[in-house]
Amino acid sequence: MPQGVGAGDDAAVVPFPPASRLVVSSDRIPEDLLARRLGLMSAAEFGQYLVAVSVSDIAAMGAKPLGTLLTLGLTSDFPVDYLRELVRGAVAAGRTWGSPVLGGDTSSSSAISLSSSAFGHLPADRALTRSGARSGDILAVSGAVGGFGAALAYFTAQSEGAAPQLPSKSAEELRARLVRPTPRVDLGPALLEREWCTSCMDITDGLGQSLTELSEASQIGFDIDVEALPLHPLTWEVSKAIGVDPYEIAFGIGLDLELLVTFKADRLREAESVGLTAFGSARAGFTQVRAGGRPAQAGVPGRGWEHFGGDASDFVARAHRPETS
Amino acid sequence: MPQGVGAGDDAAVVPFPPASRLVVSSDRIPEDLLARRLGLMSAAEFGQYLVAVSVSDIAAMGAKPLGTLLTLGLTSDFPVDYLRELVRGAVAAGRTWGSPVLGGDTSSSSAISLSSSAFGHLPADRALTRSGARSGDILAVSGAVGGFGAALAYFTAQSEGAAPQLPSKSAEELRARLVRPTPRVDLGPALLEREWCTSCMDITDGLGQSLTELSEASQIGFDIDVEALPLHPLTWEVSKAIGVDPYEIAFGIGLDLELLVTFKADRLREAESVGLTAFGSARAGFTQVRAGGRPAQAGVPGRGWEHFGGDASDFVARAHRPETS
Repeated sequence: MPQGVGAGDDAAVVPFPPASRLVVSSDRIPEDLLARRLGLMSAAEFGQYLVAVSVSDIAAMGAKPLGTLLTLGLTSDFPVDYLRELVRGAVAAGRTWGSPVLGGDTSSSSAISLSSSAFGHLPADRALTRSGARSGDILAVSGAVGGFGAALAYFTAQSEGAAPQLPSKSAEELRARLVRPTPRVDLGPALLEREWCTSCMDITDGLGQSLTELSEASQIGFDIDVEALPLHPLTWEVSKAIGVDPYEIAFGIGLDLELLVTFKADRLREAESVGLTAFGSARAGFTQVRAGGRPAQAGVPGRGWEHFGGDASDFVARAHRPETS
Repeated sequence: MPQGVGAGDDAAVVPFPPASRLVVSSDRIPEDLLARRLGLMSAAEFGQYLVAVSVSDIAAMGAKPLGTLLTLGLTSDFPVDYLRELVRGAVAAGRTWGSPVLGGDTSSSSAISLSSSAFGHLPADRALTRSGARSGDILAVSGAVGGFGAALAYFTAQSEGAAPQLPSKSAEELRARLVRPTPRVDLGPALLEREWCTSCMDITDGLGQSLTELSEASQIGFDIDVEALPLHPLTWEVSKAIGVDPYEIAFGIGLDLELLVTFKADRLREAESVGLTAFGSARAGFTQVRAGGRPAQAGVPGRGWEHFGGDASDFVARAHRPETS
């Protein structure tokens, strides 16, 4: 089939660094993303978003990206101008993030379907994984979280007539959080070079969901101080405007693409120097949430915006494992 | 997002051979494949098919496969048993073809969407492409063609009450052609090792479409002798049963996954020894079709079963090219 369309061959060919391992990931983007439904996202931004989610997975492993494929199923009435802009946005984003769009597959479909695959490379002997966190490690995040969730909460409430109009500067910044998430393509590989980073993943379904997954993969709990968590300033503004707890927003929702990280306890200064902010530590047993010195009232906030069916993923995993072990 | 589900990390990691280049390809499979609509394809066969089309692209470049990702968008009512069987079929096929399923992305969707990405490796200095055919080269195919097309024509006619029932052995073999196409994972890399193979692609949309694409990529025409073309025996049987020209079937339709190849004219014996059958040669100017010594009545048969929108692919290609040149 017409793959590697950039090259006109069956597949695209990419130089590969010596003594490296291949890292691959794929993502499907719901065609009815809230940002699109609400008319907040341009076609080019949708293309950028499509590349961002796959490339972010590569970065979260500590890998350097090499390239991206787009796989688009389009209805016969899909506007050609929209497609052209979407591809333009994807191509520009891929170039910016060092993961150029190399081709893919565009086919007609009874329903719109948009997905991307990204691939990158890792050294032969190292990777950032979700399973390396150990009791005593410090828990940190790579930037402010909650911006995406605040935007989602605000624009949803607005569309329902349940939110006051924020100043246009705030509204535009919220829109940017929602439609232009940015993968941490430099930080992931930089953390890989540090021996002290013990686990890493990207935040794609809310901080709460990410903490749960990191906890399960590493078989540890966390001691979390929500007051130390760097919330995006607009999370506070939206929280006040619509009357929702800001931590509920940050934990419960959103694709911030920031990295959730653990590292060795004696490396706090180095971690801060690369932009990580500590907000807890790994511990044996269950996760506990504090607000400063006090137990937090709500316990662990929501597990995130679960647009992914856990059951289906489990089936892929289960059906797969016996074949490769 | 939950990629690399086999491993539980953001992405899957694969060892990569030294001094190699990465080859990547992706394909979306229409959820309403005729074989599925007619109830001819099991869930496991659908999974196998999903892997086959991507892996075939890797083989057509002369590359050795390394692995496959599945990207599945599933409706909430998608039967769990069907999904389990689909994944089982994909995993088994990936293992058979040396392209193990390493994970992917399974998400809920308003419509079913199934795609796969495959990746493989090539030496640093060689690849089989579509652009290398030169005037005087011999044109050949890796096996019998038309089996898929014959099956599609037969079962379509049958569903419309326009075909007699063939013997059950023939019908079962036709079903196998339709639902279990097999990528030439050994032959592709074997041809790469031969210096005499000048171009290669897999046949996924009928031989006519493939010839057109090879012709355009290499900027040459072909002198084709249809009487030398190895047709799958069932093409003749179906041709008689439904009253359609067998060459129309082979040229006009079908995903045989055989390799369409050109090679240097003095290597006919070596080419035959690896299973290639010559049926023409490359020439300057337009393609001409003969039947033995006589001009063929119909000229070049149909351009194939175009389930891919040429326009959309072109947009990806055009939007992409300026960024990488």
